Amino acid sequence: MYDMIIAGSGPAGMAAAIYAARAELNFIVIERSTVSGGQVQSTYEVDNYPGNPGVSGPDLSQKMRAHCEKLGVEFKTEEIRSIEKTDSPNTDGSASPCFTVKTWDGNEYTSKTLIAATGASHSNLGVPGEEELQGMGVSYCATCDGAFFKNKVCAVVGGGDVAVEDAIYLSKICSKVYLIHRRDEFRAAGTLVTEARTKENIEFVLSSVVNEIRGDNKVDRILVESRKTGEKTELPVDGIFIAVGIKPETELFQKLADTNEGGYLIADETCETSCPGLFAAGDIRSKQLRQIITAAADGANAVTSALRLLG
Amino acid sequence: MYDMIIAGSGPAGMAAAIYAARAELNFIVIERSTVSGGQVQSTYEVDNYPGNPGVSGPDLSQKMRAHCEKLGVEFKTEEIRSIEKTDSPNTDGSASPCFTVKTWDGNEYTSKTLIAATGASHSNLGVPGEEELQGMGVSYCATCDGAFFKNKVCAVVGGGDVAVEDAIYLSKICSKVYLIHRRDEFRAAGTLVTEARTKENIEFVLSSVVNEIRGDNKVDRILVESRKTGEKTELPVDGIFIAVGIKPETELFQKLADTNEGGYLIADETCETSCPGLFAAGDIRSKQLRQIITAAADGANAVTSALRLLG
Repeated sequence: MYDMIIAGSGPAGMAAAIYAARAELNFIVIERSTVSGGQVQSTYEVDNYPGNPGVSGPDLSQKMRAHCEKLGVEFKTEEIRSIEKTDSPNTDGSASPCFTVKTWDGNEYTSKTLIAATGASHSNLGVPGEEELQGMGVSYCATCDGAFFKNKVCAVVGGGDVAVEDAIYLSKICSKVYLIHRRDEFRAAGTLVTEARTKENIEFVLSSVVNEIRGDNKVDRILVESRKTGEKTELPVDGIFIAVGIKPETELFQKLADTNEGGYLIADETCETSCPGLFAAGDIRSKQLRQIITAAADGANAVTSALRLLG
Repeated sequence: MYDMIIAGSGPAGMAAAIYAARAELNFIVIERSTVSGGQVQSTYEVDNYPGNPGVSGPDLSQKMRAHCEKLGVEFKTEEIRSIEKTDSPNTDGSASPCFTVKTWDGNEYTSKTLIAATGASHSNLGVPGEEELQGMGVSYCATCDGAFFKNKVCAVVGGGDVAVEDAIYLSKICSKVYLIHRRDEFRAAGTLVTEARTKENIEFVLSSVVNEIRGDNKVDRILVESRKTGEKTELPVDGIFIAVGIKPETELFQKLADTNEGGYLIADETCETSCPGLFAAGDIRSKQLRQIITAAADGANAVTSALRLLG
């Protein structure tokens, strides 16, 4: 019986591991891939992790992994199949939390606390050029990558809050921003759309879809098609921010704890979920800002909360 | 009129500066000392800032400062004398937040948003050896430094929640922990004290004070005096954790926003205070865990919240 199992080895999971190791907990990290880092791994350049300017995503992941290894953290490279809550009753009528984690390799691990740090993944447009040009002009995070497009022309694709917020954010950095949405109406809050309309350098391209992203090792244009007229246009852009949805990896935890309408595990900065002993850290948690630094802070907070429970 | 003034240049202030710079805000950082880093600056070794194992406090501070400078952040080295809220009324009857910051150098700066990141300072025991042996066995943070005392003997001084929590935390790492408190009764929550009493390697030393900390470049013993019998004892210890209070640097902000009983500015992870436009980031904010990583996350969150206000 471990004190703790950490599911996931992105910044949240690795920060949790660092704090758990330094608190001398008996714990393991279960990660799907031997390549730790989660979404950071596929990030070309990270320029907002304080003290580490311009580090590449793989390098930062590797530095965090090395930090864990220096502290003796034990990683199990296995995919989790199921998690059951199998609390053991105490003599006084209360119950001590116990989690039984089964993997597709057929192994079974039990622990008193569980940190859900399996992150989130961004939805893709699924058009030619998107995958090939990721990190070379194709981005899924304006807060992360906007600064690389100072005085350049960018497109944002999507119609929700994040897409409109991204367009507003980028309007202060870029010379011009196209906000491309497949419908006429936005799902985003009306106040956000109104604010975006006041920005002179945001051009709304509505009822339109992006069919292709083009460029030679660097995005230089996108092909846009009007869903009303069928007209096809080529827009010269230096970058395209795709904001068509984020899917938190909560499948394993959904029956254990409450999630919000976006599918995120509901927890404040203490990372405590509705399920005693289960803590949500990083992108999987309901929060305003999903960044490496906020994920890592969650890891530290989740362990601190778990320590209070472990006594 | 700046978009933002950041008061303080510890991890919270510098992280905020990094996020504000990348969002192309028009802002300045006002810092009391040209040596950025706040409490980190006086930390001998930091081993829990993910990806930067075993970095010295001054080095980590310098890396964050260099990160800011690479992004063109403007630092003003001045001490703030006063902050007034001088909102300007809008035509529709509402008011836009405006802060007027005056410094002891006689300068005056105005901004639409203000980030309070002036941190906190630990109370000292004020005994011989304390200052000289700081970072060499004298520590003010068990979560930060406990791991350096694996299988060693430590003392914790204090009677509040933090002191008792520190003793429990250290009991898992150290071979023995003395919990030294000047009274018989603890201010700490009863459940914490009860839990501490279950730990076999915690020895309670009550109605006693530490008169001196001794050692040659490294703590090796402390002199303890009983306040009841006057008896003086020498305790051999490898480390002493002083938990006799933390004072948040909120003097400048107290009349602007609500504080809690500990004096901290009340704010959740969005860093929004009761005063529109004023955001509290880092150790100055009400929160469960005061660490470099959580302070830096606050900086990012405070800027994100401010951006929503700035539109």
